[in-house]
Amino acid sequence: MKLYLAGPEVFLADAREIGRRKAELCAGYGFTGLFPLDTEWHGAAPTSRAIFAANLALIREADAVLANLTPFRSISADPGTAFEVGYGFALGKIVAAYCAAPGELKHRAVAAIGATGAPATDAGIPLADGLHVEDFGLFDNLMLAEALIASGLQVVQAQQEVDDPFRDLTLFEAALAALARGRRETITGR
Amino acid sequence: MKLYLAGPEVFLADAREIGRRKAELCAGYGFTGLFPLDTEWHGAAPTSRAIFAANLALIREADAVLANLTPFRSISADPGTAFEVGYGFALGKIVAAYCAAPGELKHRAVAAIGATGAPATDAGIPLADGLHVEDFGLFDNLMLAEALIASGLQVVQAQQEVDDPFRDLTLFEAALAALARGRRETITGR
Repeated sequence: MKLYLAGPEVFLADAREIGRRKAELCAGYGFTGLFPLDTEWHGAAPTSRAIFAANLALIREADAVLANLTPFRSISADPGTAFEVGYGFALGKIVAAYCAAPGELKHRAVAAIGATGAPATDAGIPLADGLHVEDFGLFDNLMLAEALIASGLQVVQAQQEVDDPFRDLTLFEAALAALARGRRETITGR
Repeated sequence: MKLYLAGPEVFLADAREIGRRKAELCAGYGFTGLFPLDTEWHGAAPTSRAIFAANLALIREADAVLANLTPFRSISADPGTAFEVGYGFALGKIVAAYCAAPGELKHRAVAAIGATGAPATDAGIPLADGLHVEDFGLFDNLMLAEALIASGLQVVQAQQEVDDPFRDLTLFEAALAALARGRRETITGR
């Protein structure tokens, strides 16, 4: 099974090394990891169009998207990763994910933005920025969380803050283990 | 042509009113607007699973996704909206978008996070959070920006900050006009 390894760690200086370590861990579970920076660029640095096309080709080649949905420069996941999760989900790929921030989106939102104190409604909890945050008990935006659930998986989430969330691969490996377990259960019909 | 109207304005208290105004503007250009909150829920408030399924059904019904990619509680677009853009793009929908924040992602990133002062590399501009920001001259993450370009469109972007970016529909209407123009040009073969 091939896994497209989505996540904002592509923005690290040592992104290729992280990709190499992720691919090694994948191999340990019998998976093939496809990392965005695996595409070989001969000569000049790639254009944004070339990176876009290469990433989409890797997702199409994959059987699943395993995404790092740790909040990125915000209280929520990286929108580039979210795009890739949506792209893969539409094509019938399994969506698996992990998140190095503990708790629910609503708790992060209230802590970062502040609640108005007005009562929650069907629209969610009113925040100080004039918009609501949804209150479904989910780790992030419902479109991301429900794509996982529709894939028969749960997000692998940290119990407490992770020191170096884009290099620490503990949760990544736990997500691999969950995927391998789910696959075995499917195969054995359990 | 049916347009799925994606964006974080669903989190406004008056989201339904914004949806109604957006649909009216769509009709003025000969389009049918499909707004996430249009789905009728009889009885109890919908679950996150029901909202997820309803939104995906509306995207599948649409010919295009017209997304509000204005930065949402961050320097970048809402990840729920980004998921929907990726989902629609994978299904061959046209992706159109507008952004009420001026300038490039890298300028917002440097202003919000700070540059390290180290020189830019192929990985982008090194920021104070230990990660880079891509430097492709784009308004947001390349996956979002290139999905638009692949649809033959450019983002409709504000020239300066917009006061009430999730209620002001000036850019939304400009995006409708661009879509209508693009459609005419396709039909007449220009």
